[in-house]
Amino acid sequence: MTNSPQTATAVACANIAFIKYWGQSDSGLTLPTNGSISLNLDGCLTETTVRCDPELERDQVWLALHGGEEMRASGRPYERVMAQINRLRTLAGSTMPVEVRSRNNFPSDAGIASSAAAFAALTRAAVEAFQLEVDERELSRLTRLSGSGSACRSIPAGFVEWYNDGTHQGSYAEQIAPSSHWALVDIVAVVNTQAKHVSSTHGHDLAPTSAYFPARLSEVPARLAEVRRAISERDLERLGVAAEADAMSMHVVAMTAQPPTMYWQPATLSVMQAVQRWRAQDNLHSYWTIDAGPNVHVICEAKDAPEVEARLCELSAVQWTIANGPGHEARLVG
Amino acid sequence: MTNSPQTATAVACANIAFIKYWGQSDSGLTLPTNGSISLNLDGCLTETTVRCDPELERDQVWLALHGGEEMRASGRPYERVMAQINRLRTLAGSTMPVEVRSRNNFPSDAGIASSAAAFAALTRAAVEAFQLEVDERELSRLTRLSGSGSACRSIPAGFVEWYNDGTHQGSYAEQIAPSSHWALVDIVAVVNTQAKHVSSTHGHDLAPTSAYFPARLSEVPARLAEVRRAISERDLERLGVAAEADAMSMHVVAMTAQPPTMYWQPATLSVMQAVQRWRAQDNLHSYWTIDAGPNVHVICEAKDAPEVEARLCELSAVQWTIANGPGHEARLVG
Repeated sequence: MTNSPQTATAVACANIAFIKYWGQSDSGLTLPTNGSISLNLDGCLTETTVRCDPELERDQVWLALHGGEEMRASGRPYERVMAQINRLRTLAGSTMPVEVRSRNNFPSDAGIASSAAAFAALTRAAVEAFQLEVDERELSRLTRLSGSGSACRSIPAGFVEWYNDGTHQGSYAEQIAPSSHWALVDIVAVVNTQAKHVSSTHGHDLAPTSAYFPARLSEVPARLAEVRRAISERDLERLGVAAEADAMSMHVVAMTAQPPTMYWQPATLSVMQAVQRWRAQDNLHSYWTIDAGPNVHVICEAKDAPEVEARLCELSAVQWTIANGPGHEARLVG
Repeated sequence: MTNSPQTATAVACANIAFIKYWGQSDSGLTLPTNGSISLNLDGCLTETTVRCDPELERDQVWLALHGGEEMRASGRPYERVMAQINRLRTLAGSTMPVEVRSRNNFPSDAGIASSAAAFAALTRAAVEAFQLEVDERELSRLTRLSGSGSACRSIPAGFVEWYNDGTHQGSYAEQIAPSSHWALVDIVAVVNTQAKHVSSTHGHDLAPTSAYFPARLSEVPARLAEVRRAISERDLERLGVAAEADAMSMHVVAMTAQPPTMYWQPATLSVMQAVQRWRAQDNLHSYWTIDAGPNVHVICEAKDAPEVEARLCELSAVQWTIANGPGHEARLVG
C-alpha cells in the first residue's frame, strides 16, 4: 500500500440470530460450535471511520455510543478495536498509525448485538483504508477474527447464514435471502440498557460447563434446516417456533452453566409471556427471541408491526422499542 | 373389618423437594424416573377426616381450601380422592360408603405441594378408618399410588428421601433425618395464588419430550448424594447450591418440553434474583427452589429467617410469606 493518508467510512447493521451462536470450538479463531442464521437490522447501526495517516502521533479510538458524546476509548474497548486494526494492518503490510471514530445509534452491551455492528463496520472501513483486496466471504472471515464472531453475519445483506465446519476457511457468513425477500420486522423491546453482568465472550467460555450443552448442539442442525426452509417459504410460524426454541435452548445452557448465568430480568419474562398471550388469545402472529441480555426481540410481519409495537409500548416492562426491517450489508459511505 | 362406623382424622404437611420429582417411568404406579429428597413443612397443613359409615347414602367429598368455605367436590378433585379411597377400600375388603372432609391452610395448585399434603392426610386417615394394618414404608407406597407421587414424602417426618428402583416395592419414602436434626426454615414467597395452567401431572407426561431430560436424569444421582451429605453435615451452602441447580434443571426440562411450559412469572424471577443478590452483596445465606408453579421457596437457617422473611415481604413481587420449620409425619389427630 501507499504511504499516503487513507480514510474510509462504513456503516453496518446489528443482526438478530434466529439460530444462535453460543459456544466456541476455537476462541483464538472465533470458531463457533454451531452454525447460525440471522437477519440484519436496518434500525440498529454503527458508523465507523478509519483513517490511516503517517502524520498521526499514535493510534486513537473514539467512540460515541447510543447518541452520547464522543469519548476516547481506553482499556478493553480500546484493546479490542486495536487488536482487529493490528490484524488488518499487518495483513496490509502497513505501519501507519490509525484513528478510529465510531458511533452507534442504539444501546451497547445489552443484548442488541452492538459489537456485531461495531466490528462489521470497523472491519469494512479498515479493509478499505488499508487498501486490502478481499471478497465478501474473506471479509466475513476477517470480521469473525475480531472476536465478535456474530459480527461476520453483519457483512452480507438481509438474511444470513454463518456456516461452520470447524475450520477458518469454512467459517464464513453468506446471504441466504436478500433484504427484499420478506418484509419481516424485528422490534426490540428495550427493558433495560445497563450493560449485562456477564459478557457474551465469557458466556461462550462457560457454555461447555453446562450438562445441557451437548443436547443443544445435537438439536441445532434440524433447527437450522427449519429456519432455512421457513425463510425460503416466508413461513412465520415455522420460523418463530424454531427461533423461540433455539433462544430458550441458548438461555437454558447459560442458566445451567457453572456458575449459572441468567440474562433474563423480570421484565424480560413479562414481554415473552405477553407475546405468547397475544398469539394464543388474539391470533397476533409474533415470536420472541433473546440474545445474551435482558432485551427481547419480537419478530412479526410488516403488516402486524404497528399493532405489535403499540402493544409492546403499553407494557410497563418496556422502556421503548426499536423497529427494524431487513438491513443492508456492511457498506462504505465515504 | 367390622361393619360398624369408623372415623379417623389425620394431619399431614406439604413438603418442599431439594431434589425434584419430575417425570414418571410408570404413571399407573406413579413411579418416578428419579429419586428425590424433601423437607416437610410445618406451616402448610392439610387435615382430613375419613368416615366409613354403612348409613351414608353415598360417597361424599367435602373440601375447604385455604381457609375458604367447605364445598362439595365434583369432577376431577372428587375423582382423584375417590380413586384413592376405592383403592384402600378394596384392599380392606370394605364396601361401606365414605365421607371425606378435608381442609388446608395454604393455597392449592400453585406449586406449594397442596396435593402432597392432601393425599398424605387422606391416605393416613383412610388406612385408619378402613382398619388396614400397614407399616410406614407400606403407607408411603399406598400414598404414592394416589397419583400425587410426592405425597409419599409427606408420610415420614422431617427430612425424607423417596427411593426409587423402578419397582412398586422399591419406591417408598423414608426419613433420612428427623425434624429436630437441623433448624432449617423454608419461607414460601407467595407471588401468585392462581392455579397453574399446566398441572404437575401433565408436566410429568411432557418431561420426556424435552431433549434435555436425559441430561437431567444423568445429573440427579450426584445431586442426591450432595443433598444427603449436606443434610447430614448441616451444610447450607452445599444444600442450597444443589437445590438451586436441581430446581433450574427441572424448569429447564419444562421450558424445553414440547410444548414448552413456563411455570415462572416475572415476580418469580424477581424473588430468585433478590435472593441471589442478598447472598452476593450482603452475605445473607439463603437459597431458592421452585416447584411446578410461580411461587418461590427460600431456604435458610432459623437464625436468618426473620431477616430473610422481612426482606421478602418488602419485595413488591411478594404478596405474603409462609415460614415453615421442619414438619412432622402424617399423623392421626382423631
